[in-house]
Amino acid sequence: MSQRIPVGVLGATGMVGQHFVKFLANHPWFRITFVGASDRSAGKKYNEATSWRLAGAMPEDVANLTVSECKPAGAPQIVFSAMDASVATEIEQDFAKNGHTVLSNSRNHRMEADVPLLVPEINAEHLSILPVQKKNRGWSGQIVTNPNCSTIVLTMALAPFQQFGITRSVITTMQAISGAGYPGVASMDITANVIPYIGGEEEKMEMETHKIMGGCDGASFTNHPMKLSATCNRVPVVDGHLVSVSVELSSKPSADEVRAAIESFTALPQQLKLPSAPPRPVIYLPQQDRPQPRRDVERENGMAVFVGRLRACPVFDWKFLCLGHNTVRGAAGASVLNAELMKAQGLV
Amino acid sequence: MSQRIPVGVLGATGMVGQHFVKFLANHPWFRITFVGASDRSAGKKYNEATSWRLAGAMPEDVANLTVSECKPAGAPQIVFSAMDASVATEIEQDFAKNGHTVLSNSRNHRMEADVPLLVPEINAEHLSILPVQKKNRGWSGQIVTNPNCSTIVLTMALAPFQQFGITRSVITTMQAISGAGYPGVASMDITANVIPYIGGEEEKMEMETHKIMGGCDGASFTNHPMKLSATCNRVPVVDGHLVSVSVELSSKPSADEVRAAIESFTALPQQLKLPSAPPRPVIYLPQQDRPQPRRDVERENGMAVFVGRLRACPVFDWKFLCLGHNTVRGAAGASVLNAELMKAQGLV
Amino acid sequence: MSQRIPVGVLGATGMVGQHFVKFLANHPWFRITFVGASDRSAGKKYNEATSWRLAGAMPEDVANLTVSECKPAGAPQIVFSAMDASVATEIEQDFAKNGHTVLSNSRNHRMEADVPLLVPEINAEHLSILPVQKKNRGWSGQIVTNPNCSTIVLTMALAPFQQFGITRSVITTMQAISGAGYPGVASMDITANVIPYIGGEEEKMEMETHKIMGGCDGASFTNHPMKLSATCNRVPVVDGHLVSVSVELSSKPSADEVRAAIESFTALPQQLKLPSAPPRPVIYLPQQDRPQPRRDVERENGMAVFVGRLRACPVFDWKFLCLGHNTVRGAAGASVLNAELMKAQGLV
Amino acid sequence: MSQRIPVGVLGATGMVGQHFVKFLANHPWFRITFVGASDRSAGKKYNEATSWRLAGAMPEDVANLTVSECKPAGAPQIVFSAMDASVATEIEQDFAKNGHTVLSNSRNHRMEADVPLLVPEINAEHLSILPVQKKNRGWSGQIVTNPNCSTIVLTMALAPFQQFGITRSVITTMQAISGAGYPGVASMDITANVIPYIGGEEEKMEMETHKIMGGCDGASFTNHPMKLSATCNRVPVVDGHLVSVSVELSSKPSADEVRAAIESFTALPQQLKLPSAPPRPVIYLPQQDRPQPRRDVERENGMAVFVGRLRACPVFDWKFLCLGHNTVRGAAGASVLNAELMKAQGLV
Repeated sequence: MSQRIPVGVLGATGMVGQHFVKFLANHPWFRITFVGASDRSAGKKYNEATSWRLAGAMPEDVANLTVSECKPAGAPQIVFSAMDASVATEIEQDFAKNGHTVLSNSRNHRMEADVPLLVPEINAEHLSILPVQKKNRGWSGQIVTNPNCSTIVLTMALAPFQQFGITRSVITTMQAISGAGYPGVASMDITANVIPYIGGEEEKMEMETHKIMGGCDGASFTNHPMKLSATCNRVPVVDGHLVSVSVELSSKPSADEVRAAIESFTALPQQLKLPSAPPRPVIYLPQQDRPQPRRDVERENGMAVFVGRLRACPVFDWKFLCLGHNTVRGAAGASVLNAELMKAQGLV
Repeated sequence: MSQRIPVGVLGATGMVGQHFVKFLANHPWFRITFVGASDRSAGKKYNEATSWRLAGAMPEDVANLTVSECKPAGAPQIVFSAMDASVATEIEQDFAKNGHTVLSNSRNHRMEADVPLLVPEINAEHLSILPVQKKNRGWSGQIVTNPNCSTIVLTMALAPFQQFGITRSVITTMQAISGAGYPGVASMDITANVIPYIGGEEEKMEMETHKIMGGCDGASFTNHPMKLSATCNRVPVVDGHLVSVSVELSSKPSADEVRAAIESFTALPQQLKLPSAPPRPVIYLPQQDRPQPRRDVERENGMAVFVGRLRACPVFDWKFLCLGHNTVRGAAGASVLNAELMKAQGLV
Repeated sequence: MSQRIPVGVLGATGMVGQHFVKFLANHPWFRITFVGASDRSAGKKYNEATSWRLAGAMPEDVANLTVSECKPAGAPQIVFSAMDASVATEIEQDFAKNGHTVLSNSRNHRMEADVPLLVPEINAEHLSILPVQKKNRGWSGQIVTNPNCSTIVLTMALAPFQQFGITRSVITTMQAISGAGYPGVASMDITANVIPYIGGEEEKMEMETHKIMGGCDGASFTNHPMKLSATCNRVPVVDGHLVSVSVELSSKPSADEVRAAIESFTALPQQLKLPSAPPRPVIYLPQQDRPQPRRDVERENGMAVFVGRLRACPVFDWKFLCLGHNTVRGAAGASVLNAELMKAQGLV
Repeated sequence: MSQRIPVGVLGATGMVGQHFVKFLANHPWFRITFVGASDRSAGKKYNEATSWRLAGAMPEDVANLTVSECKPAGAPQIVFSAMDASVATEIEQDFAKNGHTVLSNSRNHRMEADVPLLVPEINAEHLSILPVQKKNRGWSGQIVTNPNCSTIVLTMALAPFQQFGITRSVITTMQAISGAGYPGVASMDITANVIPYIGGEEEKMEMETHKIMGGCDGASFTNHPMKLSATCNRVPVVDGHLVSVSVELSSKPSADEVRAAIESFTALPQQLKLPSAPPRPVIYLPQQDRPQPRRDVERENGMAVFVGRLRACPVFDWKFLCLGHNTVRGAAGASVLNAELMKAQGLV
């Protein structure tokens, strides 16, 4: 137990922070020793400063930690950022400048030209930009980001198609309320309803996907050339973003080839047996009515993406639905997997 | 009151039948005098034979009608069919053969080469096939159908775009549970969940749209040439099908031209001032987060289709969301509007 | 139209205020000519100052009114108060002092010794306290309040039992999310969940019921002597508070007598044919599984209370369930009915 | 692994049967080797015969078992009955007659004078009736039942109060949809609604509680003398029955004494460290708004009952809310705990 690497969580009392605390409970490599929050919470015990809103009880070892301010002094080398976008930019930079590795779930640095937007199964090579980042900014530390919760579901599901050359894709999401934090979506808005709008989400999905699925030569990133159109909706589901995808490919694989590409898909996290990596990152569900958020989202500890209903598309080539756990694979789990990859590669 | 035209409802005790009974209450032209159902119900009072499942109370004048078997003898000239697909084919044909006009909400005859699949705002000219139907089949009566509940929402929303030449469209639906009748969807399946599958629905939407938006020269129908791909999902919403649409056009109108096309769209039912025709059949909602099923579905008596979030599509030309009331405009109201058009044109 | 009495709504842009605006649209006696809100909104058009959150469209005649500050100068003689409890005390008193009749939905003055807590079907005689109020306070105007949304449902359902002598009652509520205003209950809290706590609600139900069902001799109020225990829960329902009630009576009526008492219950608003009074204020539903919020709440324009499942209680005498529309009969409609009664009695 | 005791599940393909299969996966003492179902399923692999409707995947070792008919020949000595009430009576008796111990979740034998209705934390001594049962019926085997899913939640929560002498109790339930099996409650009935009726449930709660909390002298059962009144409602919650309870006691403990009674409550299963027994069978949640079904139901593997909001009752002595997992503690887990107790006591 004492051998585990100490880590910190910035913004630990908020909803995303709570997901980090829950996800890291019993992690084999990492142990939370530092919980950072606003001045208002600093000095209190974590369980006094936090309105715990997740199902189940607060992990006991974290409950008794004293909350610190989000300042680098005294913080562990590795910190996970669950901070609100309104404050994340300066604090994350302050930690990186002072030698910390910041694994950030915030959107602030995702699209910067020297910051990896990392999905270990897709673009591990994007970490090769880090020396540039350090040099550019004169930092002894570094910032690595993970995508928006809906982007990661889409990109994981598209990853097996990449070998066939993705040229165009039209997608529509049905996203869970937990994606909006707390209090998040008002019940008067979403009960027995759909809200066909999530501020900034469509732009994020389109931009981030181009970066994630694009290349990196160690000096700069190149966007993926696909055309992508996203429509984002909020539905009355607790956890799990479901995405309807139609995709056009430059090569024309058979149904069997596509299905095999999905079912055999594996990547670096699986080869490295990273502790949070699911054995199979993309799982095809053969039943005609799956994946379903409530029934499938917790499988594989929430770290796999589920694909179903693969069938020919009368407009493009293929259409299917995919599902991922937005607060696990789409947030806390994504950051932790990023840290595991960096640890395995000696980058932290 | 006694001047109103007597009409019948076949399958009157079922869920769709109840929607007809509710929709026709206080109709200015039509009065239900005949309620047909299975042998099991025949002979009982309608309120004894029926488990009324709609909000509000059963209309009193229908409550006391005696349920008849679904046989033409003694039935009014105009009958609305709310029968299950498993029995509709023969009974509807029996009525048509015996001189009745059957306005059918069942899917059985929709795709036949001599049966109109009618949306009065879109393809009133399809009624010109009726002489062919009568001749082909030797009927003194006739069958006119209305589309599936999700198709009608889509086609109404696409209608204003037709002047620009629709070439391709990719759509994803989020459909209400009332579309599945009663008991319909199990609560264990849909509570806090999405079911990404509705049996036969995608095929129906694709086929029916081609027929509805295609032409009719009085001898036969021609399918619309657009390529169309549909993905259909069930969401935990009571009433109202919401559709995410991306559309490619052959001409390239400006945003203002598209918006104007939607807002100025009007058609024959409006010109004829048919009693169930909404003053504006397609209504654009300018708010950034509309249309929403729970908040918008009951507006305009459920007979208009609502469009919102019109914006440029990075893959095709335009994308938007549209909403319609699946049990009103998508079922009972559709059949009744069809009957009103036929009455206005002297076809009944 | 121009003959209608001008009225004002204080707190008109909030959720309760919107319910007043909706309820008063097309009212035969009253016409909104004044919409009061905070400084921030004053000077704007109502439709610019208001995020309309109710189903359907904003009434057009109110949409174009200019919002005023909540000050008596220039306001109509009758004003409805939909103000938040944090500001209602002083503003309501200011209006009353300046000669206005304030019909208040706020809780601030409900329990005061010289303020009627009025339910016209139950305690119209409580208005006889008004001369005392005016004298005590030196007001030319007056304040009349209506109960909390859950209290009114309970008291209306208990009213027919009052003739049998109510001695004890244990009740449990299942209350709709609309009772909490906007944004109100977070969807993360209530989706597929029950929250067994509503701050202050149990105390309000117990205290207010004692006052409403108690007496008034024109000089002071006497509490009803029943013992009453309330447990209040929030359930994922949009509109309609459902209450499970067990009641002990001092006389021992038969089932038929109890049922007859409910079904024949009528009161002053019905005799006076007040425009918002339902023909029968308490309606017994004989089906074994009613009343149900979603199916019954909109009946009778939301102004009646529905009772069902009357049966013997193994602990007390009778048990039953009752339902009422919390934002209509439990809020805006209650205030308006109070105003109608006062108008009919020459008190405004 | 091979050391585990083989057990069977009767009615294994149904919803309750699936809960047994899920609950027994990885059980330290028992291993499912026999899955019984109707003729229609017999001979198929379990995964072919079963529409798996629970969250997560079907346990793999059961997936490949061949389904048998529900006949004793070849079945293990211990069988769990998840059969529908319509067929359970004869089949359960047939197994008992042939030497099997039947742990039944069906209601059929619960109220019989020689059949234990067992809750190990409350009435382990009721097992002393078994010799009478065997003698009466000439069986070499035996039948032991567990209560209805809502009864068990109530009785577990009342157990700590029993030392104070329970004289009267009025309760209202808010029950999850999973309590009704599959397809169970129609989504058209329960979406954004409450159904204030569950057929037979109130009678079951009242009767079963009297038996469970009553005595057994080895020859017969005596009912508990409390007066109990139940009202049962279905709410749109997936898992977890929540109960609002008011209770009158013959002795008058202080708040501290009551709270201590709840928090220190423990019983035989805890002393015997039965594998499915929660360390603390009744857990008090001090937060003002707990227990909540969605947030608390999965804690303690669904085997504890959670109590909250203990406060003085103006009518009786105390009121509180309690919550339990209806398909775990209220069904499969209850039967398995019963079997564990019997195993520990050498009764199987």
